[in-house]
Amino acid sequence: MAKIAILGAGVMGTAVSFPLSDNGHVVNLVGTHLDGDIIAKLQAGYAHPGLRLKLAESVQPYTHDQLNEAIKDVDLVVLGVNSHGINWAAQTLSAVLSPSIPILAVTKGLAGDGEKLYILPDVLRAGLPADYRDRLEIAAIGGPSIAQELAARRHTCVVFTGKNQTLLNKLAELLRSPYYHVWTSTDIVGVEVCVALKNIYALAVGLVIGFLEKEGKAENDAAMHNLAAAIFAQGMVETAYLVEKMQGKPRSVYSLPGTGDLYVTCQGGRNSRMGRLLGLGIPYSQAKAEYMPNDTVEGASLALAIGSTVESMVKRGDLDSEALPLLLTMIAIVCHDAPVTIPWDKFFAFS
Amino acid sequence: MAKIAILGAGVMGTAVSFPLSDNGHVVNLVGTHLDGDIIAKLQAGYAHPGLRLKLAESVQPYTHDQLNEAIKDVDLVVLGVNSHGINWAAQTLSAVLSPSIPILAVTKGLAGDGEKLYILPDVLRAGLPADYRDRLEIAAIGGPSIAQELAARRHTCVVFTGKNQTLLNKLAELLRSPYYHVWTSTDIVGVEVCVALKNIYALAVGLVIGFLEKEGKAENDAAMHNLAAAIFAQGMVETAYLVEKMQGKPRSVYSLPGTGDLYVTCQGGRNSRMGRLLGLGIPYSQAKAEYMPNDTVEGASLALAIGSTVESMVKRGDLDSEALPLLLTMIAIVCHDAPVTIPWDKFFAFS
Repeated sequence: MAKIAILGAGVMGTAVSFPLSDNGHVVNLVGTHLDGDIIAKLQAGYAHPGLRLKLAESVQPYTHDQLNEAIKDVDLVVLGVNSHGINWAAQTLSAVLSPSIPILAVTKGLAGDGEKLYILPDVLRAGLPADYRDRLEIAAIGGPSIAQELAARRHTCVVFTGKNQTLLNKLAELLRSPYYHVWTSTDIVGVEVCVALKNIYALAVGLVIGFLEKEGKAENDAAMHNLAAAIFAQGMVETAYLVEKMQGKPRSVYSLPGTGDLYVTCQGGRNSRMGRLLGLGIPYSQAKAEYMPNDTVEGASLALAIGSTVESMVKRGDLDSEALPLLLTMIAIVCHDAPVTIPWDKFFAFS
Repeated sequence: MAKIAILGAGVMGTAVSFPLSDNGHVVNLVGTHLDGDIIAKLQAGYAHPGLRLKLAESVQPYTHDQLNEAIKDVDLVVLGVNSHGINWAAQTLSAVLSPSIPILAVTKGLAGDGEKLYILPDVLRAGLPADYRDRLEIAAIGGPSIAQELAARRHTCVVFTGKNQTLLNKLAELLRSPYYHVWTSTDIVGVEVCVALKNIYALAVGLVIGFLEKEGKAENDAAMHNLAAAIFAQGMVETAYLVEKMQGKPRSVYSLPGTGDLYVTCQGGRNSRMGRLLGLGIPYSQAKAEYMPNDTVEGASLALAIGSTVESMVKRGDLDSEALPLLLTMIAIVCHDAPVTIPWDKFFAFS
């Protein structure tokens, strides 16, 4: 039996408590400063509002000011914050974490500093105290995993990624269950780039929902699946390019982290909802402010986080614009309120 | 203006007449011996029953016994038969075709002779007269292309593949239109393996429809997208293995022919319908006989066409069983009426 703290009580962080508690581990679930309502509900014995399920008895809910107590003697910290919370998490954990406790992150994203792109485990590490940041083990979870399905104990296949195979094996052992199928990969760059980019390409595939709603079905009842599939494929081609550029491995692109995670993300959710609004012709800033002011749309967050860095890298010749027409289109739509036009002539041009 | 004969008046062959006629070409659409009803309807001025649209005036419908007349002076033959018709097509074309007329095939599939697997353009070529089979140019179309959408002039992105880049450029020029976006690839093996295998893996993803129907949604309303996505990803990993084994290129796997075509094929159609029946627990032979006796289910056809060859190749060590657990499962289900069980422990094991 191990003791695990999960930081972040959103749907994904909390969902990880299900295989953990089913495996007999003790879990302390610590809300962020934004999770107050969730923790209050859980402490009162109600279901998790996002997962719509009650947690196991062995899962103890804590508020963020109780982190010190919640993290005492744990064997592992699961980082369940979203991409916006990564710097806050680094700061918060710095105050309480011992370098001997590994972190397993479910957070997806990339960061840019105008010069270069970074995977989130590296951003997290950079935010930790200098005296132990290089000793701390950071692993991450990638792969198609809708939180509500995992919490409902429906078959879910994921990859645990990190540099240390022994740690990955140990983590997989802790979490593996009859419904949570865990593989491991040391291609942390490839996995992280895939699972971050899938959000922006799912946003792109979601545009088609809006196109279809605007134009309607054809007279023979035809929808627009061909178009959605072409955008999906262009997304995978661009993902492969960026994975290679950042020294990841192509295998991650056509397995669970790449194609599997993009597939599941296109089945609905906030990226698809925002994609629909954009496809209907509503500029991004208006769509966000009027229709989804309180939602984190990870695809749009990613465009905002890396947009100007990607544009600078293209300008400097560090990235090839011909290899990334869809990414650049999505960045223009989200960062500059550009109108939605599909750059057909630029698709699949790069080989 | 060119003159083109399309052999096979099913939905896909006929859909190709739309960009051709829109581009001002004359099209002779020749039904097979199984397309009698379709040709009769078209000759009487009705819509195509599968596409639910009328054809352009410049498209002339012909019955198979008029092939000789229909094929006179054409610049190109589009082969629109399904995988079962490939030998019939070779025989039929042998009687009338001149080696100077290229063939552009929409037929998808693979064949096996117990020893080896073959792509369909090679099967077609082998069935042509020995004195010119090596001189004839054969190209093929791959990529996500639901026929009804193409016929409705909805954006469709495809790859024309073949050995001769000059011919591919010429064919792309003939068919390209504002809604039919055509790229070219000389990786005919990679493209053909991808577009054939997508049928069997779409059948596998379709199983989940049956699983969900049987088990129902979870108490928190969760479906089974994680499971479908994992099967999708395993399908891509296995496709990449077979493409490599047959000397195709990985790029075809993660672009239009691989990931794009599998994505679109999972959006519905006969593979999904059969997958649902199998997922409900109905043995294949019963599902086919009772529910879909008159439908060609391409995924099942492929399993039957290559099943015993794949099994022999695995036995002889020419293929690695660890690399193909899902394919072997689908072959067992279709060829041996095996019960449906997902071999989790064998997934993603091969790297």
